[in-house]
Amino acid sequence: METEVNYFPGLEGVIASKTNISFLDTVQGEIVIKGYDLIKLSQTKEYLDIVHLLLEDTLPNELEKASVLEKLKKEYDIPEKLFTIFNLLSKQTHPMDGLRTGISALAGYDKHIDDRSLQANMDRAYNLLGKVPNIVANSYRIINGNEPIHPLQDLSYSANFFYMLTGRRPSPLEEKIFDLSLVLYSEHELPNSTFTARVIASTQSDLYGALTGAVASLKGNLHGGANEAVMYMLNEADTVSNFEEMLMKKLYNKEKIMGFGHRVYMKKMDPRALMMKEALKQLSDVKGDYNLLQMCEAGEKIMEREKGLYPNLDYYAAPVYWMLGIPIPLYTPIFFSSRTLGLCAHVIEQHENNRLFRPRVLYTGERRTLTN
Amino acid sequence: METEVNYFPGLEGVIASKTNISFLDTVQGEIVIKGYDLIKLSQTKEYLDIVHLLLEDTLPNELEKASVLEKLKKEYDIPEKLFTIFNLLSKQTHPMDGLRTGISALAGYDKHIDDRSLQANMDRAYNLLGKVPNIVANSYRIINGNEPIHPLQDLSYSANFFYMLTGRRPSPLEEKIFDLSLVLYSEHELPNSTFTARVIASTQSDLYGALTGAVASLKGNLHGGANEAVMYMLNEADTVSNFEEMLMKKLYNKEKIMGFGHRVYMKKMDPRALMMKEALKQLSDVKGDYNLLQMCEAGEKIMEREKGLYPNLDYYAAPVYWMLGIPIPLYTPIFFSSRTLGLCAHVIEQHENNRLFRPRVLYTGERRTLTN
Repeated sequence: METEVNYFPGLEGVIASKTNISFLDTVQGEIVIKGYDLIKLSQTKEYLDIVHLLLEDTLPNELEKASVLEKLKKEYDIPEKLFTIFNLLSKQTHPMDGLRTGISALAGYDKHIDDRSLQANMDRAYNLLGKVPNIVANSYRIINGNEPIHPLQDLSYSANFFYMLTGRRPSPLEEKIFDLSLVLYSEHELPNSTFTARVIASTQSDLYGALTGAVASLKGNLHGGANEAVMYMLNEADTVSNFEEMLMKKLYNKEKIMGFGHRVYMKKMDPRALMMKEALKQLSDVKGDYNLLQMCEAGEKIMEREKGLYPNLDYYAAPVYWMLGIPIPLYTPIFFSSRTLGLCAHVIEQHENNRLFRPRVLYTGERRTLTN
Repeated sequence: METEVNYFPGLEGVIASKTNISFLDTVQGEIVIKGYDLIKLSQTKEYLDIVHLLLEDTLPNELEKASVLEKLKKEYDIPEKLFTIFNLLSKQTHPMDGLRTGISALAGYDKHIDDRSLQANMDRAYNLLGKVPNIVANSYRIINGNEPIHPLQDLSYSANFFYMLTGRRPSPLEEKIFDLSLVLYSEHELPNSTFTARVIASTQSDLYGALTGAVASLKGNLHGGANEAVMYMLNEADTVSNFEEMLMKKLYNKEKIMGFGHRVYMKKMDPRALMMKEALKQLSDVKGDYNLLQMCEAGEKIMEREKGLYPNLDYYAAPVYWMLGIPIPLYTPIFFSSRTLGLCAHVIEQHENNRLFRPRVLYTGERRTLTN
């Protein structure tokens, strides 16, 4: 009979995978991505650098980086029939569910779907990195009754993604900040969605399936859904004093407040949040509007004082996306789109050195005997 | 720094959940479902009894059972637009991927998608149990260029499912055996797909998302895909002597042979496989054709002698489905359809007493410093 000894609620403290992809080093306070500190990477590198780093194991030189961009641009277009499918989805479909359905349907176009080789998985990863921004933007647009938008080949990867989300080309600062957010969201060890993807991949199921599971996971408001929840809260409050009042009320009612705390970071601010806070300052300077920044800072103080909790990335990514003019329901899909990179790296690693995930349970029910 | 101490490859031996749903009692050799031995249940109870047992916690009386059937029948029909979506999917879409896309798209029709209450989840569970057989049958039919088939209200739940899969009403023996297979596949503690569903649900994501992840997991050939792999192997061999030769060759080449062994059962035959073997005998008697049965028995002997491995459910479910005239690509979708029951019970339990799954990693990569 199983006993409590091996029971780890939420698998807290359990090491589920060996990996050479990333690691939250809580001792040195570093988010280690392929050996490098993510925060340092984010100060000089772009999302395309991280693509090369995570998939090819090295930071690219200019030529290699240009070649990554070329590869991705070739994959931008999605099958025409996906547009029709998006058009058929119920108009109340959640953007994450539209995204999930799109990736799920895309699997049918992979002529080598049963091939789990490293090369096939790498090709698949570039294909998905090219197409997911398109699926994110167009599933949302079409479900909401808008015309599809088509990728612009003359823009950078991030600028094109921004354009597809908003319908306008970003300013240089907007492009830089949006790219930074993609870098910061790109990979983060083994959160629930990445764990989901590895668990699915461990049955030798394919990358599309692993990603659909990860979309489903990220949708939950204890995970990726948090950035949207933060923005709705900020918009509802609208002023610093209202926000302070709202937080105190939520704390009094013992409600969970999104955007604070993290299973792994407990004692200080998520360093990624600091980067986004800096970006929020830059955007506030440009627009001469400091209201969101001041609200966020006030909230930060209250949560530290009352609960000893610190902001995570979602808390500052939300107002940044707002000031970039991105519709709120796209915040979690953007998170997913960036994280597609880390997810692909993890699924590839899982397939290359696989062991089926199959834990056990502790049965707490009674035993019964059939009487008839 | 994390160490090897808490590293559990494949989470083997780790208890990931407390549950009162089911438990593989390897000491007493019982598959415990809500306290009862599944094998004993399967000898006198039907799938609808198990639906009531898993969702309402008790075996139903006749009135309650009739009410379950009524509830499910009301949910049989799927939105018309799903047929059009199936028609738009690439013709090479894998049946499990068609099923996954269908369930994913269905989420958009749930008017209370954000409601995680017990009642909303229970309604959702009956809705899905009613609709998944329809999605399984029609996604497959339409992807393969056939007309949709519509449920027959005058049949039992299992007979209707059989009819939708094959286009014909089952004989009483076929209905009984098909229902038995659904009972045996209905729930099985925490295999990869059920674990996937609970991991996803733990972010407070919804039942549809948890199920799409579970479809993706079950598709893998280390999991649900095994029953189809067994049948392709049997068909390729075609005779007892060829099958013996094939198995010996595979063993010599150290290939994995599907349908044998199980992470949890190691020392004896999966008791569910014995039930399906009995069913295979009955079908062989009726048809006067013992070839598949003899092949399977020969394979069983070889695997016991050479590897000390015993058949699991998939090994005998495959030839049973073959003799029932069900197309091979539907075997794993049928497994999923039956397991929808257990998956719903687990997601409901997870939502009722939630803790986010978030394990850690052991970083095996180097540390690097940015030079430029």
